[in-house]
Amino acid sequence: MLQDQMLLRIPGPSPIPPSVQRAMSRPMIGHRGQETSNMLKNIAPGLQRIFGTTQDVVILTGSGTAGLEAAVVNIVKPGDEVLVIVTGAFGERFSKICEAYNITVQSLNVEWGEALNPLEIKHYLQEHPEIKAVFSTYCETSTGVLNPIKELAQAVREVSDALIVVDGVSCVGGVETRMDDWGIDVLVTGSQKAFMLPAGLAFIAASERAWTIIENNPQPRYYMDLVRYRDNLLKDTTPFTPALSLLFGLEQVLQLVDQEGVEQVNARHILMMNMTRAAFRALGIPLLTSDKDASPTVSAVKPEDFDAEAFRKVIKHEFGLIVAGGQQHLSGKIFRIGHMGYCSPADVLQTISAMEIGLLKVGKEIELGKGTAAAQQVYLNEGVLV
Amino acid sequence: MLQDQMLLRIPGPSPIPPSVQRAMSRPMIGHRGQETSNMLKNIAPGLQRIFGTTQDVVILTGSGTAGLEAAVVNIVKPGDEVLVIVTGAFGERFSKICEAYNITVQSLNVEWGEALNPLEIKHYLQEHPEIKAVFSTYCETSTGVLNPIKELAQAVREVSDALIVVDGVSCVGGVETRMDDWGIDVLVTGSQKAFMLPAGLAFIAASERAWTIIENNPQPRYYMDLVRYRDNLLKDTTPFTPALSLLFGLEQVLQLVDQEGVEQVNARHILMMNMTRAAFRALGIPLLTSDKDASPTVSAVKPEDFDAEAFRKVIKHEFGLIVAGGQQHLSGKIFRIGHMGYCSPADVLQTISAMEIGLLKVGKEIELGKGTAAAQQVYLNEGVLV
Repeated sequence: MLQDQMLLRIPGPSPIPPSVQRAMSRPMIGHRGQETSNMLKNIAPGLQRIFGTTQDVVILTGSGTAGLEAAVVNIVKPGDEVLVIVTGAFGERFSKICEAYNITVQSLNVEWGEALNPLEIKHYLQEHPEIKAVFSTYCETSTGVLNPIKELAQAVREVSDALIVVDGVSCVGGVETRMDDWGIDVLVTGSQKAFMLPAGLAFIAASERAWTIIENNPQPRYYMDLVRYRDNLLKDTTPFTPALSLLFGLEQVLQLVDQEGVEQVNARHILMMNMTRAAFRALGIPLLTSDKDASPTVSAVKPEDFDAEAFRKVIKHEFGLIVAGGQQHLSGKIFRIGHMGYCSPADVLQTISAMEIGLLKVGKEIELGKGTAAAQQVYLNEGVLV
Repeated sequence: MLQDQMLLRIPGPSPIPPSVQRAMSRPMIGHRGQETSNMLKNIAPGLQRIFGTTQDVVILTGSGTAGLEAAVVNIVKPGDEVLVIVTGAFGERFSKICEAYNITVQSLNVEWGEALNPLEIKHYLQEHPEIKAVFSTYCETSTGVLNPIKELAQAVREVSDALIVVDGVSCVGGVETRMDDWGIDVLVTGSQKAFMLPAGLAFIAASERAWTIIENNPQPRYYMDLVRYRDNLLKDTTPFTPALSLLFGLEQVLQLVDQEGVEQVNARHILMMNMTRAAFRALGIPLLTSDKDASPTVSAVKPEDFDAEAFRKVIKHEFGLIVAGGQQHLSGKIFRIGHMGYCSPADVLQTISAMEIGLLKVGKEIELGKGTAAAQQVYLNEGVLV
């Protein structure tokens, strides 16, 4: 097999564009110098555009989970009651973080593979006025569901003053996000998914009313104190030494996004989702989620008559093509294809055409090229991207 | 369109593997130090394996053409008569170099798109005993023809003492090459094709009897004097400062080739050729060359009912997919797909599936997925590569 080729199609970490890789290998600089300040100044508007906010988007050096924890420790305190909407493995993470801080968690569990129902949340909150914050996930990476965050925020605000906290890790940067317009209070994402960077940065923004709560929250915190980040950002600096190489890369990512255009980036992700889904539909292989609930960044496939793990092994072995398996009770039952960030419609065609060979190799009877043709047809119908 | 993605499928320069790119960005070293000597020692057996020779393979810093010129100035001198077999644009280059040095050139022109006929050369040499050297091209990049060099060398040796000089630039490293067994006297190739490197290095080996002629050739030369290179190589050094970054890369390339295995590398190239040809055949689009004459590294396609240049423009615009046009009288009439070096069967599937969309966009009526399916079928029938 051709050495040194990996077709990384997991739902993050995602591939890094060559120009971003080059940017990240720039010589190191001092984090208190003018060059770093200029870079932070350069980065700010691009992040705000992707978040759909005029608020500051602060940058934490840490995993996405550090960002989620920062959201928790800044907006709630022990004794507070919160609602966590669990639509999959990453919804559960919010619960675990809250529980670690002795926050009282009420959970609303949604069948894995389905999206949350805003109306249900609305009714729940009407009956539970004690809820201080609602935690939810925009894209549930473990199932490929995109939750209706706009409708959720609207429903919550109609009946409650609870803050709306959204984990956007596996989609923000690839799907439409209008934090201000939709009324999201805290939005968190990470660098290793649609942002086309290695893991290591978390991006967080908060609404005006969230900042008021953050500023007055007695919950002890230091590294994750968002106030420090915002106060420093206003002076074009950071409270602690940031991962400068990742910032070099981020600056370049934002330039690429600007060149393509945020709306075009989002349209490309929808196109890639539609191509992928059309392919599996044409091949007669079930998708885990409905069209309405599907995420533009990751597709979960639920085979009925072949082994998902054997299939993953074959395509890795034959083509260096890596897709993800299922998590927890979906382990072994689904596989998940990432199509986000540095991924093009031509990459989707490659993924599907290679997978068709893999399907035959694990004994699934399909007509070669049929899934590819369906994806090509979607491209021809929708693909005015240039 | 996704920024910063280019699918480079011209017949060279070809894409660079990431580990080779990393190797080339190693910090600079002195060219007279032990590290460089060790590197040259490391490189030697890998090059010999690819060339199929026990002779020294010398490394010139220069384009492939510098290697071709070195072959000329080292083995012939003004007044000598040589035969140049011209099967395309790169065959002609040998003629032009010889003419620049006042060598008397006899040309044997073969229809572009066809391979040379060893029997014809044999008869020609029987009638022209004055010929001192026969210049030919292994892969004719401009047409995608692989000339039968083994049979040529055998035919020449049966009737003549003329040296057999072969331009292997666009195939050596990707196709079977047995310089010693076949009786090739001088073999030249470059770094930017099947060798997975940027342009800038030429590799040259000579047979025992060629070295005798080289050593006694009064033709003035300095930078291109192969004797200097061989004498220095015996001391693990080079006569002039070499392109050290390219040597860092070459060392890594040879490691990748060793990991895959030379025979597996060659088998992969044949597989990629067969996949590509099956695809166009299934789509009803003519290939320029016959199956017998086709090169494993580059395929030339000759459209009858759509515009090759419009097609190239569309696939570049839609997918960043770059293929080459035709040269000289084939300009505008063919397009050429490189499938060599850092290129996998999955890359071929991507190229074909993206091209199918491009074909429809330029008005060629095809059934979507049909070419892809044909290529997939070839992979399933032949593709035991791992």
